[in-house]
Amino acid sequence: MSEKAKKQIYKPRPISGFPEWLPEVRAVEQNWLDKIRAKFESYGYCNIETASVEELEVIAAKGEDVDKEIYVLERLQAEMDNNGGDKKEARLALHFDQTVPFARYVAQNFNNLTFPFKRYQMQKVWRGERPQVGRMREFYQCDIDVINVDNLPLAFDAEVAAICYEALASLDIGRVQLRVSNRKILLGYLDECDLDYDLHQDVLRAIDKFEKIGKGEVRKILIDEIDMNDIEAEQIIRFAECKLSAKDFYSKISEYVGLETNSLLQDGVEELGKVLQQLAHLPEGAVVADLSIVRGLDYYTGTVYETQLLDVPEFTGSVCSGGRYDDLAGSYINKHLPGVGISIGFTRLFDVMRQHGKLPEGAKSPAHVLMYTEDKALSGDVAKTAQTLRARGINVEVYYTVKKWEKHFKYADNKKIPYIWYVSADGHKVKDLATGDQGEADPNTWEPAK
Amino acid sequence: MSEKAKKQIYKPRPISGFPEWLPEVRAVEQNWLDKIRAKFESYGYCNIETASVEELEVIAAKGEDVDKEIYVLERLQAEMDNNGGDKKEARLALHFDQTVPFARYVAQNFNNLTFPFKRYQMQKVWRGERPQVGRMREFYQCDIDVINVDNLPLAFDAEVAAICYEALASLDIGRVQLRVSNRKILLGYLDECDLDYDLHQDVLRAIDKFEKIGKGEVRKILIDEIDMNDIEAEQIIRFAECKLSAKDFYSKISEYVGLETNSLLQDGVEELGKVLQQLAHLPEGAVVADLSIVRGLDYYTGTVYETQLLDVPEFTGSVCSGGRYDDLAGSYINKHLPGVGISIGFTRLFDVMRQHGKLPEGAKSPAHVLMYTEDKALSGDVAKTAQTLRARGINVEVYYTVKKWEKHFKYADNKKIPYIWYVSADGHKVKDLATGDQGEADPNTWEPAK
Repeated sequence: MSEKAKKQIYKPRPISGFPEWLPEVRAVEQNWLDKIRAKFESYGYCNIETASVEELEVIAAKGEDVDKEIYVLERLQAEMDNNGGDKKEARLALHFDQTVPFARYVAQNFNNLTFPFKRYQMQKVWRGERPQVGRMREFYQCDIDVINVDNLPLAFDAEVAAICYEALASLDIGRVQLRVSNRKILLGYLDECDLDYDLHQDVLRAIDKFEKIGKGEVRKILIDEIDMNDIEAEQIIRFAECKLSAKDFYSKISEYVGLETNSLLQDGVEELGKVLQQLAHLPEGAVVADLSIVRGLDYYTGTVYETQLLDVPEFTGSVCSGGRYDDLAGSYINKHLPGVGISIGFTRLFDVMRQHGKLPEGAKSPAHVLMYTEDKALSGDVAKTAQTLRARGINVEVYYTVKKWEKHFKYADNKKIPYIWYVSADGHKVKDLATGDQGEADPNTWEPAK
Repeated sequence: MSEKAKKQIYKPRPISGFPEWLPEVRAVEQNWLDKIRAKFESYGYCNIETASVEELEVIAAKGEDVDKEIYVLERLQAEMDNNGGDKKEARLALHFDQTVPFARYVAQNFNNLTFPFKRYQMQKVWRGERPQVGRMREFYQCDIDVINVDNLPLAFDAEVAAICYEALASLDIGRVQLRVSNRKILLGYLDECDLDYDLHQDVLRAIDKFEKIGKGEVRKILIDEIDMNDIEAEQIIRFAECKLSAKDFYSKISEYVGLETNSLLQDGVEELGKVLQQLAHLPEGAVVADLSIVRGLDYYTGTVYETQLLDVPEFTGSVCSGGRYDDLAGSYINKHLPGVGISIGFTRLFDVMRQHGKLPEGAKSPAHVLMYTEDKALSGDVAKTAQTLRARGINVEVYYTVKKWEKHFKYADNKKIPYIWYVSADGHKVKDLATGDQGEADPNTWEPAK
């Protein structure tokens, strides 16, 4: 065929870091996202979506180095024109997390929000990483945060943790462990140390690596690079080793936290104890105090969290992290707005489960029933029956191609549609593909098995 | 306070074309998207999501001029480095619709899909338009398409139309009218005309403007610019004037379609008649045959649709459009893959309804109940009661700040949370904020009013 011969074919390749799933995998992803959303809403958190882009200045206003992994947008037209017409417009960058957009949104809509403002957000974020195995450049995050004016009750620190724990526990991913700390404990201790304030972040960064590089290497960093004395370095390591169950916290914390003269440290211990107490209703082992948790980001000021999948050792790192911040939106509005929040790194979690064959099997079709007739004259009956079932909440796919038996049977089997509904001049029959049972059916009363 | 004085505030501005909603508006948007999704699934269409980006080559492979409204991505890092390291990578562009990504996805996953492949897709798309009132640069589209190998039954042309009609009818937007045509009618007629083949698209483009510029202007274009003779131009205008109810179609179509010697034209009339017949179950006035509908895009080859909101005259243009194409994925795979599909321009529809105050009132919180105690010692009881209710599917927000009566009352009222649940040493009481009724309640049995 000359038409086909003429055709230029461009064979598309997968784009590194931009994951896409087959329908049956997407069905599982959608189901997980639905479950997380339902959990967030069950606690009364409202949803927002922010634009996919921020002005570069907004990101820069956070005061940190502008992240180098940011994707900026260019209009192809502007490039083609090569004119300066667009230069006056602010440059737009795809958001790389949901925290900066949330802070900006709160500042911008301050007068139209009710505080404490409790929101969840489940969008894609983008990071312009170099292509590399396992590195994602587009992924879903599922965030919840509470933000309030001037003061935010500590009870929210426990609430957001409980919500995320429950959200993860509702997925089929085995045991989940929430590891909680409070930065005030370490920061309070560091206040007492003979150490430049500038070096505090370096100490936190060293502790952050505790699990990865081990006690000896951390000690080396503290003493050789940060110039701590031996006693102080030992105490820091003692902190990092502190892992207590919620039950043991009050009786054993003093073994790890020696100094009790610093009020910030004391506040931290008290806050951590209260948060653990409020999480006591979660299952045994669901929550531990772990003073090695510090989180890399500067803005956390109190409670910090990480979450480990105990039954998925392949997933190193935290699946869900966050903490309390004193003043998140301060770059955008002259108000004091403390908050606390957690983010589930959804796509990374999902993809690890997928790669290790730990996802449940998903359906290729949401249909409960495949409807079929061999008699074209009955297509009106087919349409009406399908409508009756749909109105009753049963998803019905109609198989339009009139072909021999095996074809539509194979189609239903391929798509894992559980029932075939036959319309014929003799009436309606339903076949259960799992059991092979077949019988007459009335569209007004028939129900699929649960 | 010196800290505050030091603080640099960057006041963020809205970004033109990137809409964002307050929580109560987003709640309505989410509800609408849920309804559309449920409708799509009720017909057995599976969901897919594609990456937000495509390689520029993939877009270019479609053979049309690369769209100038495309946003291309640049890594900020690459710009900073100013090195050529990234040059080897394909350039990435944000997708500007869901049709190109769908075609590419089908080609790429061909061996893992079951055909006919029926999918829906509800994602954001981006167009790098110049900032201008009403122009959106980021918006949701809700698409359904069916694609098959070699042949696709005409029944799907009616099915996708019915689904989109029902999806729109399930929203609170008044009467919806689906306008259907079949391009074969016009193309068949044009085959008989004494006209260069190259000019056929120009004729379609002229008809497309029929409603906007009127009969006289269209005649002028046909005769002066396209060089048609008077008789042919009159027939074209006669086509464009043809608007028939499904009921009248067979009896009256011959008044508009004079020539019956062309087989393509005859096929078109027959197909259009069958599609209308299959849509006869929809309410009176829901569907009309309208031969002025041609759709601008080249790839449509048969049925074409547009949809009008009859009760929202502010919304000019079509809220939901699509058609049948002979070979959509032909640029990416050497198979013959005909398809039919429709796309709802969701955000545009939503925003017009919003701007005209025609949205239903949305809730600021998904909570059914605000739970509250004045006695901090009872916070364990509060937590347990809230958990009991949540496990029963009731969304519960806990008000943690212990403040005087008016505060939490005002909070519930602001967020339109319908019930306040009081926990005290005397037991549990629930207040219905709409009626003012208050009474004792058992968390194991209590239900909110529907």
